[in-house]
Amino acid sequence: MSGNTFGTLFRFTTFGESHGELIGCVIDGAPSKIPLSESDIQPALDRRRPGKSPLETQRAEADKVRIVSGVFDGLTTGTPIGLLIANEDHRSADYGDIRDKFRPAHADLPYQLAYGIRDYRGGGRASARETAMRVAAGAVAEKILKTMIGDSVSVSARLIRVGGETDPSRFAAVIEKARDEKNSVGGVIEIVAKNFPAGLGSPVYDKLDAELAKALMSVNAVKGVEIGDGFAAADLTGTENADEMVPDPAAPNGIGFLSNHAGGILGGLSTGQDIVVRIVVKPTPSVGMPLKTVDGKLNATDIVTKGRHDPCVALRAVPVAEAMVWCVLADAFLRRRAVCFNKDKD
Amino acid sequence: MSGNTFGTLFRFTTFGESHGELIGCVIDGAPSKIPLSESDIQPALDRRRPGKSPLETQRAEADKVRIVSGVFDGLTTGTPIGLLIANEDHRSADYGDIRDKFRPAHADLPYQLAYGIRDYRGGGRASARETAMRVAAGAVAEKILKTMIGDSVSVSARLIRVGGETDPSRFAAVIEKARDEKNSVGGVIEIVAKNFPAGLGSPVYDKLDAELAKALMSVNAVKGVEIGDGFAAADLTGTENADEMVPDPAAPNGIGFLSNHAGGILGGLSTGQDIVVRIVVKPTPSVGMPLKTVDGKLNATDIVTKGRHDPCVALRAVPVAEAMVWCVLADAFLRRRAVCFNKDKD
Amino acid sequence: MSGNTFGTLFRFTTFGESHGELIGCVIDGAPSKIPLSESDIQPALDRRRPGKSPLETQRAEADKVRIVSGVFDGLTTGTPIGLLIANEDHRSADYGDIRDKFRPAHADLPYQLAYGIRDYRGGGRASARETAMRVAAGAVAEKILKTMIGDSVSVSARLIRVGGETDPSRFAAVIEKARDEKNSVGGVIEIVAKNFPAGLGSPVYDKLDAELAKALMSVNAVKGVEIGDGFAAADLTGTENADEMVPDPAAPNGIGFLSNHAGGILGGLSTGQDIVVRIVVKPTPSVGMPLKTVDGKLNATDIVTKGRHDPCVALRAVPVAEAMVWCVLADAFLRRRAVCFNKDKD
Amino acid sequence: MSGNTFGTLFRFTTFGESHGELIGCVIDGAPSKIPLSESDIQPALDRRRPGKSPLETQRAEADKVRIVSGVFDGLTTGTPIGLLIANEDHRSADYGDIRDKFRPAHADLPYQLAYGIRDYRGGGRASARETAMRVAAGAVAEKILKTMIGDSVSVSARLIRVGGETDPSRFAAVIEKARDEKNSVGGVIEIVAKNFPAGLGSPVYDKLDAELAKALMSVNAVKGVEIGDGFAAADLTGTENADEMVPDPAAPNGIGFLSNHAGGILGGLSTGQDIVVRIVVKPTPSVGMPLKTVDGKLNATDIVTKGRHDPCVALRAVPVAEAMVWCVLADAFLRRRAVCFNKDKD
Repeated sequence: MSGNTFGTLFRFTTFGESHGELIGCVIDGAPSKIPLSESDIQPALDRRRPGKSPLETQRAEADKVRIVSGVFDGLTTGTPIGLLIANEDHRSADYGDIRDKFRPAHADLPYQLAYGIRDYRGGGRASARETAMRVAAGAVAEKILKTMIGDSVSVSARLIRVGGETDPSRFAAVIEKARDEKNSVGGVIEIVAKNFPAGLGSPVYDKLDAELAKALMSVNAVKGVEIGDGFAAADLTGTENADEMVPDPAAPNGIGFLSNHAGGILGGLSTGQDIVVRIVVKPTPSVGMPLKTVDGKLNATDIVTKGRHDPCVALRAVPVAEAMVWCVLADAFLRRRAVCFNKDKD
Repeated sequence: MSGNTFGTLFRFTTFGESHGELIGCVIDGAPSKIPLSESDIQPALDRRRPGKSPLETQRAEADKVRIVSGVFDGLTTGTPIGLLIANEDHRSADYGDIRDKFRPAHADLPYQLAYGIRDYRGGGRASARETAMRVAAGAVAEKILKTMIGDSVSVSARLIRVGGETDPSRFAAVIEKARDEKNSVGGVIEIVAKNFPAGLGSPVYDKLDAELAKALMSVNAVKGVEIGDGFAAADLTGTENADEMVPDPAAPNGIGFLSNHAGGILGGLSTGQDIVVRIVVKPTPSVGMPLKTVDGKLNATDIVTKGRHDPCVALRAVPVAEAMVWCVLADAFLRRRAVCFNKDKD
Repeated sequence: MSGNTFGTLFRFTTFGESHGELIGCVIDGAPSKIPLSESDIQPALDRRRPGKSPLETQRAEADKVRIVSGVFDGLTTGTPIGLLIANEDHRSADYGDIRDKFRPAHADLPYQLAYGIRDYRGGGRASARETAMRVAAGAVAEKILKTMIGDSVSVSARLIRVGGETDPSRFAAVIEKARDEKNSVGGVIEIVAKNFPAGLGSPVYDKLDAELAKALMSVNAVKGVEIGDGFAAADLTGTENADEMVPDPAAPNGIGFLSNHAGGILGGLSTGQDIVVRIVVKPTPSVGMPLKTVDGKLNATDIVTKGRHDPCVALRAVPVAEAMVWCVLADAFLRRRAVCFNKDKD
Repeated sequence: MSGNTFGTLFRFTTFGESHGELIGCVIDGAPSKIPLSESDIQPALDRRRPGKSPLETQRAEADKVRIVSGVFDGLTTGTPIGLLIANEDHRSADYGDIRDKFRPAHADLPYQLAYGIRDYRGGGRASARETAMRVAAGAVAEKILKTMIGDSVSVSARLIRVGGETDPSRFAAVIEKARDEKNSVGGVIEIVAKNFPAGLGSPVYDKLDAELAKALMSVNAVKGVEIGDGFAAADLTGTENADEMVPDPAAPNGIGFLSNHAGGILGGLSTGQDIVVRIVVKPTPSVGMPLKTVDGKLNATDIVTKGRHDPCVALRAVPVAEAMVWCVLADAFLRRRAVCFNKDKD
C-alpha cells in the first residue's frame, strides 16, 4: 500500500498537491444517517487558515470545502464522502530556486531517491497544504462521534511550549523575534480528549496509543509523541507512576482514579480518563539564511528560501493535531462497536 | 480488524497467552528463497529470556522456537512461516489474588470494560510473554534484510537512562535498589539503524517515523517515542535543527550530511543517515507494596503483587524494541520494492 | 471497511453518485515515472459512453476525465492520482416515481434495510455511472502494465451470447426486439488476457482467479464468473481436462501447452497461457412494463420505469469487464514484484 | 499482502503444509463472549475427512483440532483464536516421482515460476490439506453467527451434478466407474444460506456476491461461481428475471418475494431471501494414466500419479464450500454491525 490512506473503519484517502488545481479527500466508512453539511467542516478549516493571525505566513487561500458525494437530504448515506478544496494561491515562482537543489531538513532528497522524480513545487505531498484535508476529515470524525456518543466528547489541542518558552503570554514575542531574524522556532502541543468511553483500542498492534502515535507522527514536522507522563515516566518509580483506583459512583463505570500518569490509556486501551498526548514540532526547515546543500548534480551550493515561510509551524499544527486525534478516536470507536457482543443488548 | 496483526507486506499475526500451552506467530509475506532456520531466530530469543541476568525476574522458560511451516530445504518458500514456542512455566497461583481485583497501571480494567471478559492469568495478551513472538518475528525480518540488502545493515538498541541515571555503570545499582524496596524504575532506550537505503517509508500516513512510532508504542509499557533530536527540537531554531548537506563521494548517493538532527528521517522517508529513535518505558506496574484499587463489585480494596515481578521492565524491552525496528524496516523495504519502477533495471 | 476500495497495491477508491456534481476516483499505488495523461484514459471512457450506438440508452454525458493530481511533467510521481468526471446529465425527473417504491431486481430494498436511508435518484452507488470510474482506473492499470511489461500484453472483452443468441450478426436484432417490447435481455461476455507472465496471483485466498471473480462479480448485474472451461468442466474427466505440456523453445519459459482447459490459471497462479474468463450479465431490471412491488409503507403497488433504460446492459458492461481485468492484473503484477527475490537480479 | 489471510473483520490466516508436522489457523476478530470449544469444530472436520466413505481417497488423518488460544472458561476472549491440527499421514514416498516433473493441471509449474522454489511434497499449500483449516474456521464462523443472530441461520451445501449426472442416486456409480478407470470426474455444488438478515454486503467492491465468488473460487479446483439463476440468466428477459415483491406480514421486514432469480442478493446486498450459490469443481488433476509433461530441465516426459488420488474431488469440496460461505457471512455480518448507526437503538 502506498500510504495515502488513514484508518481502517473510519478511513480516508487524500490526494492533490499544493500546486495542482485542488486537494481532496474521500472518507469511507462513515455510518449512515449522521447529519453532515459543509457547515460542520468549514469552521475547522477556517481555524487552520494561515493569515488569520499576523504571526503566520500570509497565503491567500479561502479553503472553501465542498461535499461532492455521500450526503443526501443532510444525512450521510453510508457511501463515500468526497471533499474537495480548490487551490487558489499558486505562487510557484517563490520556489523556482529549489528545482535543482535539495533543501536541508526537507523531504526533497529522500523523495528523489525513492521515486526518481520529484514535484519541486511547494513540496508536493510533503507540503502543509495536504493537512487541510486532514482537518476536514477530522471535522467529519468529530461530527460522527458527537452524534453517536454525545456532545460531551471533546478533543482540544493547544501549544504549551514555543522556542523554549512555556508562558503563553510570551509566545507571540518569541515567534516575532524568529521572523525578524529570518529563522524559526519549534514547539510542543498538548492534546486532551475528554469523556470518551473506556475500552477503545485494539491490542496488540493497533493499541490506541500506538494509533495515536502513528497518526500524530505522520503530521509534517512532528518528531516525537508521548502519552500521559511520557518521557518523564522514565524517572518515576512504580508506586509514583501508578494511578490508584477508588470507588466513585459519580464516575463513569463507578471507578474513580486518584491520578492520571497513564494519560488515559493502559494496555493500549482507553480507561475512561482524559486522554493526554503531547507532540513536538520541529522548527520550520525553510529559513531566510543560506544553508549548505547540494544540487541534482551533487555540486556544493547554498540555498535560501525567499518569500513565504513559517517562523513557527507548531502554531499551524495545532488544529491538525486535534483533527488527527478525532480521526483516531472515530476509527477506534467504530472498531470497538464492530467486535462488541453484548448479548443483553443485541 | 482486531489489532493482532503487524505490517502490510512483511506481516505477522501473533496468538497465544502466557498461560496457554504455547504462543505462536504466523509470518506472511517473506519473499521466497531466503535462507532460514531456527538458528537464525533462537539467539534473539535467548537474549530476551529473563533469568539470564540476576537483575531480571526469574522465570523458567526455555523459549525454544520451532519453525512449523514455510521453509523447505533451508529456504523460505514464500508461504506462511509458522513459529511456535511452548509455554513451560505456568505458575498461575502467583496471580490468584487478581482474579477479582483490577491492578492499577495494568490493562485489567479497560480489558474488562472492552470485552466483558478478562483472562486474569498473567495478563493475557497484555503480558510480556507475547513479546517473545515479536522478537522471533524480528529475527526473521533481520534475516530477510541482511539477505536482500547485505550484511552491513544493523539495528542496535541499548538502555541510555534508568531511574534517572545516565551512566551505564550505575544502572545495576539503581535496579537492585528498586528490587530491594519492592518497587520499580523506568528507563529510556535508544535504537540505531545503520546502512539502510534512503527512500524507505510511504508518505503520507505510513511515513517511516509514523510506522516506527506505532510499532514501538505498541510494546508493553512504552509511553513515548521520539526521532532524532525528538522533544529537544522544540527548543532549537531552524538553522540549529537543519542538517546541511555537502558533496561526499564516499557517502551513499554521494551526499554527506553535516549533522543528524533529523534522526535519519525527513518527510517520512529515510535519508540514508543513521535512523535514531528513542522510547520511554514506564516503571513496571506490579509492585510489592499495596496500591489502592477496586474489585469486580466496585468495593474499595488493596492489591499487592506477590511473587515474580520486574524492577525494571525497560531492561527486558531492549531486544523487543530492536525487533520491532527490524520488522518496520522489513515492511518498509518490501513496500519500497513494490512501487519502484526503474526502467533501466526492470 | 466499507467496500468502496479496490485492490491492495494497485488500489483505488471511487466516490460520487450519478446525480451529484461529479464522480471521482483516487488511485494509490501506481509506481512513479509511468507516462500518463488524459489521452491514455479518455478513449476507454469514449468506448463506454452510451449513445454511441443506437442500441444503447441515450444519455448526454461527455464523460471528460481530468487528472487532478499524481502526475508531473507527464509522469506519475508515485503520489495518489485523482481523476474527476463532471456529471452533465441530471434528469432526476425520470426517477421521481421510485422515491417511495422499491424496484424489483434493483438494490433499492436491501440498501434501505442496510443503511436506513436511500438516495433514490438514479440508483446512487448501484447505478451504472460509478462504472465510468472503473473504466478510467482500468485505463491507468493498462498503461502501467504496458509500460512495465511491454506492449504485447492485452486484455480484450467481447459479447459472445445475447438473449440466447450466439451469432454476433444477430445480436442487434435481438436487442432491438427487446427494446420494442419494452423488455430487456441478458448476455455473456468473454474476456481474454494475453502475454502476461506466469506466476501472477497470491495463494491461498488471493488467488488470481479468486480476485478476478470478485472484481467481475462486483460489476453491476453480473451473476456468475467462470474460468477456462468453467461450468463445462463439471462434465469432463480428469484426462479430458488436463492441459498436457511439451517442450517448446518458442514459448515463454520454454514450455508449451497442448490445450487450455484451465483458462490460463492453475492453483490460483497464471501459467503464461491466455487467461480466459466469462461472465453472465443479467437482463436490465428496469423495464417498461409494470412489475409488482411494495412502497415504503409496505402497501402493494406496481412500478413501471419510464424514460431511459437499457434493453441490454451486457453491451455496456463489456468495457467495464475489460477494465476490471486490467485492474486485477495490475494489482497482481505489483504484488508479485513485491515478493520476488531474485538473488541474481537484485 | 501474500494472500494467506481471509476476511477483514472475521479474519483468519492459515499456515502449514500437508507434509509438515501440523497445519494451523489464527482467527482474529471473533467478538468476545461467544461460547466455543473443540466440540463446536470437530464435527465439521469429521464430515470432511477422507475415508469415511468408500468413494473417497484413503488417508489416515484423524484431524483432531486443538484450540490453543483465545478461549477462557469456554468463552471467546476477543483475542486471536489459534487452531492446530497435527499431520499424521506423511507418505511422501507417493509423490517422489514429481520432484522433477510438473504435473499437468496442477499448480506445480506456476509455483516454480513464481517463487523460484517449490515444495513438491503433496502439493504444498495448493494441496487439499490446507482446506481442513478452512473447515475449522467455518465452524467458528457458524458458531459466531448462530450465537449472535440465532439458531435459525443455516448454510447447507450439496452435490447437484457429478460427471454429467444429476440424479443423486447415480452419483456413486459414476464415481466408482471413474476410479476403476483410474480417471476422475467433475461436479457442481449448490450452497444455500437461509434466514440471514437483509443488507449484508459492502458495496461497491466488497459486495456480498463478490466476496462469495472470491472465497469460493479460492477453493482448490473450483473454476466457476454463479448466484441465483447464474449463467441461465443470460437467456432470460428482464420481466422473467425480476423477483416481484408483495406485502407479506409473515415475511422478514414484511416483504414477500414471488421468486428468487436473484439468489438472495441484489446490488451486492442480501435481500433476506435464501442466498443460493453454485460452484463447479473440475475433475481431479491426479490420474492414474500417463499425461505428457516436461521436467525441470524442459525435457519431454510422462507422468503418472501412483498411490492415492480422488476420483471426484467435488465430493470432498462440499464441506469446504459450506465453510467458506459461513466465513463470508460472518465477515459481512460483523462489517454490517460496524457501520450501522441506528439512533433509536444505540
